[in-house]
Amino acid sequence: MQKLTIVKVGGAIVEEPQSLTKLLNRFTQISGNRILVHGGGRTATQTAAAMGIETHMVNGRRVTNADMLRVVTMVYGGLVNKNIVAQLCTLGIKALGLTGADLGVIRSHRRPPMPDGTDYGLVGDVDSVDADALSTLIQAHTVPVVAPITLGPDGQLLNTNADTIAASVAKAMAELYDVTLVYCFEKKGVLRCPDNDESVIPHIDSRSYEQLKADGIVSGGMLPKLDNSFSALRAGVTRVIITSADQIADFTQSTVITQ
Amino acid sequence: MQKLTIVKVGGAIVEEPQSLTKLLNRFTQISGNRILVHGGGRTATQTAAAMGIETHMVNGRRVTNADMLRVVTMVYGGLVNKNIVAQLCTLGIKALGLTGADLGVIRSHRRPPMPDGTDYGLVGDVDSVDADALSTLIQAHTVPVVAPITLGPDGQLLNTNADTIAASVAKAMAELYDVTLVYCFEKKGVLRCPDNDESVIPHIDSRSYEQLKADGIVSGGMLPKLDNSFSALRAGVTRVIITSADQIADFTQSTVITQ
Repeated sequence: MQKLTIVKVGGAIVEEPQSLTKLLNRFTQISGNRILVHGGGRTATQTAAAMGIETHMVNGRRVTNADMLRVVTMVYGGLVNKNIVAQLCTLGIKALGLTGADLGVIRSHRRPPMPDGTDYGLVGDVDSVDADALSTLIQAHTVPVVAPITLGPDGQLLNTNADTIAASVAKAMAELYDVTLVYCFEKKGVLRCPDNDESVIPHIDSRSYEQLKADGIVSGGMLPKLDNSFSALRAGVTRVIITSADQIADFTQSTVITQ
Repeated sequence: MQKLTIVKVGGAIVEEPQSLTKLLNRFTQISGNRILVHGGGRTATQTAAAMGIETHMVNGRRVTNADMLRVVTMVYGGLVNKNIVAQLCTLGIKALGLTGADLGVIRSHRRPPMPDGTDYGLVGDVDSVDADALSTLIQAHTVPVVAPITLGPDGQLLNTNADTIAASVAKAMAELYDVTLVYCFEKKGVLRCPDNDESVIPHIDSRSYEQLKADGIVSGGMLPKLDNSFSALRAGVTRVIITSADQIADFTQSTVITQ
């Protein structure tokens, strides 16, 4: 099986020119097949604010009405995606920007209202990823750069969490490739002490994860990332790594997640 | 040689849901290989206004500073492109949204200031189109949907006129395909009397074009469209057709341009 590295990068890293350039330079150093999945939430929030559109978040997730969907489609699918693609091109990489609508690669359905009544609006939960379409691109030495927008029924674009997209793509591709899924963010890994950037937990498996949750060491935004990681591993992904932009090519310091 | 139809659609047609749906339904009826090139200027102007960014036009062309480049990248590459792609997917077409930066398919350089001192800013004049990359996509039964953003030096995205992009793509593809270039807009063709929508001139060649210009019958925004048409024909494009959204599959009523 060929190796495939799927890097998900979000937060400030893709939205600040300097850190983005550094990240993309590192990304070119990853050997073998690659897919990049990005976020762009801060820019979406700023753009919405500039247009007089208010951002509502529930449990760290964006409530997406029709106006906000236009904003995220513009920001994720246009601004952030095309700036990444343009920079990768100049670094000699045949990058191709995609949303889930392009070639219909990621299809979803609209998330129904939560039991507590919360309605996230035009938010999609992933139904399927077209691994064959992505594989054809990869085999042509193309690097797909995926924005977190998916294709719902009747051509409805839906806003979809980028971590979830990365995990869904990793699961689908695990049938065809030896997949490493890398969640890249501002820290060097999952931290034992949030205030100490050097307190990286080098390894987490499903047993130690339960303990870390019980002890309250892992909480907040890290929980869905880790839940996504274990779900990907159960579906055949070889390994999941949580690390910083500096480490995506070598994982010198990082948290490795295994079943 | 295989046939390839390149349809450029702009103006209100792609920006109003009803006319867009009608256009895309017609587009599916075109037989053989297809590429769609779109504009989106009105939405860009509205989005800019909503963000407090003023639009400056000189000779019908948008002056593009850094803020406006962000807007057109969002609107053309994101909002308009992805809505077209999503609709085409539901119509059973394997549509793939592209800017010139994706796979580096359309490269450009920044237009230098005009002799009269006008500086259009971050506007690109096309240097090259990667016909092989587009042909590979087409042969995989993909329909490229091209937004009018190109890739300048050093990864700089540049705003580029969509009519020019359509002509540039048509010229490059003429080496590999029997190309028909269709400019689709609100009217049924080039009109002899601007007030009479039925006064379509059925055929224009380079000799009659000179006469139409001398008589003042063709003027304004139609001039660059026709200049682009003749330039495409000289470069090997088989025929250029100017028509309305209703006619893109059959050309019952339209203006046919030949050398």
